[in-house]
Amino acid sequence: MVSIDDIAKKAGVSTATVSRVLNGTGYVSEETEIKVLKAVRELGYVPHTLAKTLARKKTFSVAVVISKRISELIKSDVGIFYKIILDAIENAASIYKVSVDLVLLEEVITGEHRTYDGYILVGSDASEEEIEKLSRSSKVVLVDHYIDGLRVDSIVSDGYDGIFYITKKFIDSGFNRIIHIHGPLKYYGFRDRYNGYVAAMTKFGKLPLVFEYDDLHEEIDSVLRRALRDWVPEVIICSNDPIAIKVLNKLKLWGYRVPEDVSIIGFDDIPAAEKEGLSTLRVQKVELGVNAVKRINEILSKQSAHPYKQCIYTTYIKRNSSVM
Amino acid sequence: MVSIDDIAKKAGVSTATVSRVLNGTGYVSEETEIKVLKAVRELGYVPHTLAKTLARKKTFSVAVVISKRISELIKSDVGIFYKIILDAIENAASIYKVSVDLVLLEEVITGEHRTYDGYILVGSDASEEEIEKLSRSSKVVLVDHYIDGLRVDSIVSDGYDGIFYITKKFIDSGFNRIIHIHGPLKYYGFRDRYNGYVAAMTKFGKLPLVFEYDDLHEEIDSVLRRALRDWVPEVIICSNDPIAIKVLNKLKLWGYRVPEDVSIIGFDDIPAAEKEGLSTLRVQKVELGVNAVKRINEILSKQSAHPYKQCIYTTYIKRNSSVM
Repeated sequence: MVSIDDIAKKAGVSTATVSRVLNGTGYVSEETEIKVLKAVRELGYVPHTLAKTLARKKTFSVAVVISKRISELIKSDVGIFYKIILDAIENAASIYKVSVDLVLLEEVITGEHRTYDGYILVGSDASEEEIEKLSRSSKVVLVDHYIDGLRVDSIVSDGYDGIFYITKKFIDSGFNRIIHIHGPLKYYGFRDRYNGYVAAMTKFGKLPLVFEYDDLHEEIDSVLRRALRDWVPEVIICSNDPIAIKVLNKLKLWGYRVPEDVSIIGFDDIPAAEKEGLSTLRVQKVELGVNAVKRINEILSKQSAHPYKQCIYTTYIKRNSSVM
Repeated sequence: MVSIDDIAKKAGVSTATVSRVLNGTGYVSEETEIKVLKAVRELGYVPHTLAKTLARKKTFSVAVVISKRISELIKSDVGIFYKIILDAIENAASIYKVSVDLVLLEEVITGEHRTYDGYILVGSDASEEEIEKLSRSSKVVLVDHYIDGLRVDSIVSDGYDGIFYITKKFIDSGFNRIIHIHGPLKYYGFRDRYNGYVAAMTKFGKLPLVFEYDDLHEEIDSVLRRALRDWVPEVIICSNDPIAIKVLNKLKLWGYRVPEDVSIIGFDDIPAAEKEGLSTLRVQKVELGVNAVKRINEILSKQSAHPYKQCIYTTYIKRNSSVM
């Protein structure tokens, strides 16, 4: 059987270097990396990274971290989005031989907890400083959250791509009056979707028309009055399902026909979307959870150390609130 | 041993549904998916997806597709970026039991080739229409390329994140006059990096100052004269290493001290960057290739069917062209 020593000899490097390349840990120049990988190939060495997961006796301990706010949300229907992700994480954990504990973000921050091999942070309540501090000493994967330039592994839903897709779909079919009603842009998710709408409109030479709606501080009425002042839009693309459902019900109340007069599109696919017949971009919530477990397992077993952001594409679910 | 039938019975669904969930193929409602995954967990069923790759007798055939333009480039030093990616693909292929052929994009488009189980398209020469057509009938992974809203698996370098990181790093240290010289924004890569610079500047209340430079149609002199007209920038962040090296040499020729008067940053880390002492954001080229092979193997062995974009973070390499 081919050993690491054989590879080191063949490549003319130390065994420590071979190990760094195979485990993806530490700095190795590209030239050296290629030399080692060539030796691996020529000698027919099969790394045991895949076999390792199967044969592994040790169980990695992983903290699944949510904020107090989310732990309150998941007690009711409002938190169904997070509930599905957490269920998926628990299920995937048993498959990947990872043991998971649900831990509060506030306890992780103050250090009132045992230490874990890895941390999966679910949701966007952790601040940049908190994530930076934790990631300096531990392996961290963010779910449904990303911080610009921090280079921490993230699994997110690709809101940019989803909203670009649906905006383009309507433009391609000859629609012109397509507007976007969005939540506060300080949140990564809303900003990402906003950028997708603006990119699609400008790419096809149309002026983006956007209306901000902060559901904590205003009624949908005033936003909709502004949006309808000069003409009735053919399509209203919303930042998320709760906003879209408010728009849908208010427009029906005001006597507009949906979808004949106006098509309404949401984002997320929460259970209420199905009940209300709302067309929406489904976030792959199960995939967010499963892929987070796969990723932390990869990192902890040193199968792929270089961090990345995984943006899972959405799926368009057409229901009765839109003509296509 | 637990079988798929046992899971179907426990979850109260058909075996076809169980298979769809475990293989990630076809539409399954989230409710059903969770029911099946719960049964999987309660019965202690271990899917053989990981074992499958190890035990697999069959070798997947994968076409590694490059354009004629890139096939010419890799004959000289100019194409080193692609050469490294192609070498990494070839090496990873042997590890993941995938057989790869190098095929020309132009031949794939016209159908002058045998069919393959999967296609890895390297570089951004394939058009949206060409990619859409190929992905309708085959499994496709793009490398260093992404098409808005097309929802085809992509492995890219995160230019947005890298340029955001370095811009913020200089802002955090008190620098103010930070400008960006970028290539034509019709290319995804340049646009992505441009967005990272603009996002970082505006986030910290600074006015972005950008200069477009098309190296096919103009000299760097005229761009630099415009950039230096009113004051000398403290930091010039460039779209890629070739632009940065031109800027570096021209400014030295004009008598500026680098990095004392001005810091210059590139993007890519091509071999010339090391020779010229250029600080730059290294694109993880080996990772781009290796992860593309991992991804096509996952897709072909039905371990994870839902498509995503993987954005690999860059690594900052400080050399002599910058003060930090």
